[in-house]
Amino acid sequence: MTKLFAQTLETQPLLGLFGDVRARTMAMVDGLHPEDMTVQSMEDASPTKWHLAHTSWFFEEFVLKPYAAGYATPDERFAHLFNSYYVQAGPRYARPQRGLVTRPTVEEIVEYRRGIDAAVESLIAAGDAPHDLVELGCHHEMQHQELILTDLLHVFSHNPLQPAYRAPEPLPTREAAPLHWVGFDSGTTQIGHGGPTFAFDCEGPRHEVLIRPFSLASRAVTCGDWLAFMADGGYSTPTLWLSDGWATAEREGWNAPGYWRRKDGRWMTYSLRGAQPVDPEAPVSHVSLYEADAFARWAGARLPTEVEWEYAGGPVADGTFLECGRLRPAPARGEGLTQMWGDVWEWTGSAYLPYPGFRPSEGTVGEYNGKFMANQFVLRGGSALTPQAQMRRTYRNFFYPHQRWQMTGLRLARDV
Amino acid sequence: MTKLFAQTLETQPLLGLFGDVRARTMAMVDGLHPEDMTVQSMEDASPTKWHLAHTSWFFEEFVLKPYAAGYATPDERFAHLFNSYYVQAGPRYARPQRGLVTRPTVEEIVEYRRGIDAAVESLIAAGDAPHDLVELGCHHEMQHQELILTDLLHVFSHNPLQPAYRAPEPLPTREAAPLHWVGFDSGTTQIGHGGPTFAFDCEGPRHEVLIRPFSLASRAVTCGDWLAFMADGGYSTPTLWLSDGWATAEREGWNAPGYWRRKDGRWMTYSLRGAQPVDPEAPVSHVSLYEADAFARWAGARLPTEVEWEYAGGPVADGTFLECGRLRPAPARGEGLTQMWGDVWEWTGSAYLPYPGFRPSEGTVGEYNGKFMANQFVLRGGSALTPQAQMRRTYRNFFYPHQRWQMTGLRLARDV
Amino acid sequence: MTKLFAQTLETQPLLGLFGDVRARTMAMVDGLHPEDMTVQSMEDASPTKWHLAHTSWFFEEFVLKPYAAGYATPDERFAHLFNSYYVQAGPRYARPQRGLVTRPTVEEIVEYRRGIDAAVESLIAAGDAPHDLVELGCHHEMQHQELILTDLLHVFSHNPLQPAYRAPEPLPTREAAPLHWVGFDSGTTQIGHGGPTFAFDCEGPRHEVLIRPFSLASRAVTCGDWLAFMADGGYSTPTLWLSDGWATAEREGWNAPGYWRRKDGRWMTYSLRGAQPVDPEAPVSHVSLYEADAFARWAGARLPTEVEWEYAGGPVADGTFLECGRLRPAPARGEGLTQMWGDVWEWTGSAYLPYPGFRPSEGTVGEYNGKFMANQFVLRGGSALTPQAQMRRTYRNFFYPHQRWQMTGLRLARDV
Amino acid sequence: MTKLFAQTLETQPLLGLFGDVRARTMAMVDGLHPEDMTVQSMEDASPTKWHLAHTSWFFEEFVLKPYAAGYATPDERFAHLFNSYYVQAGPRYARPQRGLVTRPTVEEIVEYRRGIDAAVESLIAAGDAPHDLVELGCHHEMQHQELILTDLLHVFSHNPLQPAYRAPEPLPTREAAPLHWVGFDSGTTQIGHGGPTFAFDCEGPRHEVLIRPFSLASRAVTCGDWLAFMADGGYSTPTLWLSDGWATAEREGWNAPGYWRRKDGRWMTYSLRGAQPVDPEAPVSHVSLYEADAFARWAGARLPTEVEWEYAGGPVADGTFLECGRLRPAPARGEGLTQMWGDVWEWTGSAYLPYPGFRPSEGTVGEYNGKFMANQFVLRGGSALTPQAQMRRTYRNFFYPHQRWQMTGLRLARDV
Repeated sequence: MTKLFAQTLETQPLLGLFGDVRARTMAMVDGLHPEDMTVQSMEDASPTKWHLAHTSWFFEEFVLKPYAAGYATPDERFAHLFNSYYVQAGPRYARPQRGLVTRPTVEEIVEYRRGIDAAVESLIAAGDAPHDLVELGCHHEMQHQELILTDLLHVFSHNPLQPAYRAPEPLPTREAAPLHWVGFDSGTTQIGHGGPTFAFDCEGPRHEVLIRPFSLASRAVTCGDWLAFMADGGYSTPTLWLSDGWATAEREGWNAPGYWRRKDGRWMTYSLRGAQPVDPEAPVSHVSLYEADAFARWAGARLPTEVEWEYAGGPVADGTFLECGRLRPAPARGEGLTQMWGDVWEWTGSAYLPYPGFRPSEGTVGEYNGKFMANQFVLRGGSALTPQAQMRRTYRNFFYPHQRWQMTGLRLARDV
Repeated sequence: MTKLFAQTLETQPLLGLFGDVRARTMAMVDGLHPEDMTVQSMEDASPTKWHLAHTSWFFEEFVLKPYAAGYATPDERFAHLFNSYYVQAGPRYARPQRGLVTRPTVEEIVEYRRGIDAAVESLIAAGDAPHDLVELGCHHEMQHQELILTDLLHVFSHNPLQPAYRAPEPLPTREAAPLHWVGFDSGTTQIGHGGPTFAFDCEGPRHEVLIRPFSLASRAVTCGDWLAFMADGGYSTPTLWLSDGWATAEREGWNAPGYWRRKDGRWMTYSLRGAQPVDPEAPVSHVSLYEADAFARWAGARLPTEVEWEYAGGPVADGTFLECGRLRPAPARGEGLTQMWGDVWEWTGSAYLPYPGFRPSEGTVGEYNGKFMANQFVLRGGSALTPQAQMRRTYRNFFYPHQRWQMTGLRLARDV
Repeated sequence: MTKLFAQTLETQPLLGLFGDVRARTMAMVDGLHPEDMTVQSMEDASPTKWHLAHTSWFFEEFVLKPYAAGYATPDERFAHLFNSYYVQAGPRYARPQRGLVTRPTVEEIVEYRRGIDAAVESLIAAGDAPHDLVELGCHHEMQHQELILTDLLHVFSHNPLQPAYRAPEPLPTREAAPLHWVGFDSGTTQIGHGGPTFAFDCEGPRHEVLIRPFSLASRAVTCGDWLAFMADGGYSTPTLWLSDGWATAEREGWNAPGYWRRKDGRWMTYSLRGAQPVDPEAPVSHVSLYEADAFARWAGARLPTEVEWEYAGGPVADGTFLECGRLRPAPARGEGLTQMWGDVWEWTGSAYLPYPGFRPSEGTVGEYNGKFMANQFVLRGGSALTPQAQMRRTYRNFFYPHQRWQMTGLRLARDV
Repeated sequence: MTKLFAQTLETQPLLGLFGDVRARTMAMVDGLHPEDMTVQSMEDASPTKWHLAHTSWFFEEFVLKPYAAGYATPDERFAHLFNSYYVQAGPRYARPQRGLVTRPTVEEIVEYRRGIDAAVESLIAAGDAPHDLVELGCHHEMQHQELILTDLLHVFSHNPLQPAYRAPEPLPTREAAPLHWVGFDSGTTQIGHGGPTFAFDCEGPRHEVLIRPFSLASRAVTCGDWLAFMADGGYSTPTLWLSDGWATAEREGWNAPGYWRRKDGRWMTYSLRGAQPVDPEAPVSHVSLYEADAFARWAGARLPTEVEWEYAGGPVADGTFLECGRLRPAPARGEGLTQMWGDVWEWTGSAYLPYPGFRPSEGTVGEYNGKFMANQFVLRGGSALTPQAQMRRTYRNFFYPHQRWQMTGLRLARDV
């Protein structure tokens, strides 16, 4: 299995990456109670303590068990309990039941994590670790860091007491930079990952693509833009919507982005900092692909393709990422293309499909991405809940078009 | 509201009852983790911590707020959160969402309980308490004590680790006393509650009924009896079943009582003491009305009516109740009618309907029982999870005919 | 099997009954198109052509096959297709799929009926027929006559063209006789069927019951009464409702009886004579047990028990039945207890359960009634769509408390 | 609206096309009974009589009402009843209810069709018709011709009598030509519709694409191939499947293609010619995208993209289309790429998305295709139920990946 990934990092950087990622996860759950970390609010989400355990299980299963001579698991049953890959024999303990597994407790899981940490660090130090798999495990855990927060927000949103994950005071805002269009000429280019550095399998192979002339909006769509869409009947005009989108919106009773609630005549948004007034200058988030697509049609524009996005996006730049601790998108500032990185994941109009010549990794690790290549759309750029360390120009995130519990927004594109 | 119930207990006995009940609830959750006490495994069940809070809220709402001058609630929002009566304005915080409310934490709820305890005890001591409502609250809490255990068993049953609530070793058993039939002559009698002592509103009025000759089995149906029913195709013979029962059994895939699982060629039952071999001498439990009715038809008998049961049952007798700590039904012993009290709730063939002349209590307390008088069947006698202190000859328990997460069994009856 | 029922009718009356019933069924479908007779609008209903075939199959299966020497079925597969008793091996051809069976065509089914008619008549004339089973088949078919109409109304109600089964002009009305209360004293009486004449098994055995003093309203609740209930917030006051009833009303969005629709500021009711203005003087119909129970609570009254109803109802009297062709209930006239027979089925507060000593008929015919004895409530008296010939003082109709596609209304009762 | 489409056909060819299409529809329903034409067996399907009416309504709405001076509709309500575009205000008459609309009858709808035929022919003859819209209507009706047959097969499949639409005898077969691989080099080409002739809006704009080296199987996958997949555990090996596909297969209990049923030890397929033995030499059909994708993975291949398919497919060629009357796919014969046209629709691995620069037609006609551009996959080539006259090299059919009531199969592709 070690042949599947390149040995990209030296021992010291790998120890550093591993230590940082593992420590950040624990720092993120600081202040949460066992109660908060146990429940599952919907099938798409998982309890915090499952995330804590599953990311550790990943190292145990793919690194320690095959490579650490003499490693003994603290509990053989964890291999079953914390395995997201395993296709269940029966329904009793299936994914939607994750929130019913109260034992092992959070404390026991934290103990389990500590054991994994020590064993992996020893293995790396001893020169016996498969660097590529450890690195994969770190990137895998960074994905779960974002999920910990989005799943927790979903849990808290069902509590009438409206708990806040972090200090609930409003954040400073500012006027968003005015929108202008940034044009791109036609041509041929390459997209996708091709080098020796780390990437998920679905990001490659690198391949040639045709670019047609297009332009991108200089910033993400704001909450103020969205309020105009709502005021103009955006949620009640079926001709703006994809057929499946309209059916979803009707069934779900959507009339605003996720977590927006009307209170005393104004719109509030429920966030990791509690209920806050909607900031018209900040990017809109928690919108589905269906809503994003309807908005774009209303605006006389369209969503960018992932090819356009990757071509225009350039290398990863600083932005409102998880590391800055803001936990919410911030109004655009600066010139040119802004907010490509951080703030909100940007829906593209591209279906999540294999790149030409794609072959999944072999073995169980190969279930990672390929099996999800139907019915989902690609998102790019990361959000205020995404670790910046995880981002790459070629990074392909993907969700179903009806999902909106992630920090998902959009940027407009136009044919030229 | 105080006029609704008689002032049946003196101050000291009331203080004793209140103290005992409140203390037993806390003793029952000893050894549980916050994780265990937070989740909700199905719509019919509630988290342990909700039970802890709701039983306290009951005293706060009906005793302290109206009668304790100067009482200040620690959190006004609890009135909403822990109120089972309140008809929800919207679906967001409805009953099935109880398991998503992670705050207040268990610790905060225990603190809330302590405050209620102190305030109620002061009020009683000062002579200002409505004795009838305090007594009602104690009986209400005893009902929830049983639910705490049955709901917890349901939660644990979804955990592949099969945790045990109490010491998991097998319990001593013995041969059940042989079954014989006990006959009763025709006549006129009275059933229902009529005196000045405590009872729920649905137990009255006391009224005259006709008795036709009948006989009752001397003991409850055992697991051994049930294995014979299973071996004879009981679960695959539709003519034995009520039409709704057969549809339920097919939809749910029933082929054995609840919590029974086949392992290595023998039947195990999952219990509060973990997975245990099925004891053929002990009463069968966790069967629905539909199963009980099919069994009775297969046995050439029928279920007793609640009139017959109350007539034959006599006053409450000692039995396998919660107080004895066994937590599972025990094989019958003794002569005559045995096991009428304790061991398992016994399904009757009587629909849960108002007695002639029934009038619900007025005010919010009046929602207690009357509104459930459709689609449910009456059970009698209490189970190994029921506080004996709660039982009365006239006590009417009721569940839907498809439900089987309670400790429910049956006793056969015959026309003579 | 012939021992199950008494030989109650002589040859000539039996031939007359059989001829009348079979002819009326065909007269009832006169004017319907094959399209109308093919579809099934919900699981509880069946296509007209299935009713035509099933009632014939009943005679074929229980009379011709066992008793008519040399009888050969025109198609052996009909035994499967038109059998409501048969417990399906798989879901593919189950009850909800009846509306997908387009062959045999209506014409072929009518041909099948003619063959059955001739064979049964020959068998009776030859003295070889089991009179009791033929009579049972006739009463069975009369039940289906009513279902043909109620199922057809349900089908038509989904057609925006609002077709009318019979001439759509409004019917003459009149002021309803004023409501007064008719009192009954306490005592002992007998109810249930006991004689040698025909009755369904569930109507017996005849048995003694206690009567407590009560009074009945002199007429059924009218649409005008119901409009007052609606105006007073009846559909938005949860404390008036049974818990299951309120949940159903919320889920279904009930705010008026079945088939009522608001148009241009007034209430219309969709009927077998097309859309008609609601007649405030006529009995309300198409209300569920839940609505009836809520109305009674609002009115400070209750529903009668079936014992009270049978005691008070007396022998069958003339009324607005199917034979009169009105197809809708008519305003009350006359003195004393009116409208007990015909107009609308009257919900009682009695669960449909076995009478003491009940034993179902043996064999397949025995599935007729007993297996439905859970979760349903008894209705009495027949409706404007019920053949008067089918009625008996002891007749027990039964439906689930949420169902309202039958012509179901109510009469109030009170304790005295 | 006339500016949207080119005026591609002269009067005589247009009259010929219109006459042919309209006559074929009526010939196709010859032999069906009104019962067959009324019912709807699932939400995705429609009753035959709705297809007959809707295709006529299309001409009425888009041709006669705007262009035929003095045209009067026979019934204004048809505009609502037969309009698939209209977004419903409420659920009562929504799409799943089409099978409940028994009036107008088939006879009345045929009468309606005749009136439309005469009016459109007069309009064309008078030179007043918008040729492009008439042509659109004809192509629209050809799409519905295929749906009439696939929807009817679905209806009949629920009838235990297994009716046959056309003569049920088995069809002659032959050995399929052996499979070989046909290679294609890399390069740049153009795909999509660009000329003045008729095409649906989604087929354009014509645009440049990159071709990478690939090869296509010389014929479609056969039933024999599929039996090998089944024998090798194809339906029980989750790693072969897309995640959504495996979930669907488990939920639906798939273990063979649609309409396959095991009988007496061999596989039968239910078809428009009744139940027939599976022909191992003929192309497999009624498989979903999920199954096709799993098969390709099992075979070490993949599905072609729609770009590859269009590039390789060349102009429309003769094949097993609706016109030949076979109604089932036939074994491959000949050399080189065979069966590209006709036999079975071939799933591609391409999501149905807008081509670069796509703009839907304006007005209501513009709802035609664009709003379905999410969650569906493209199919190419037509089937034995598709009118050959409707096919074009650029034709894009699309269905959801779980759907398999169409005559859908697959052809393998490989990277070179």
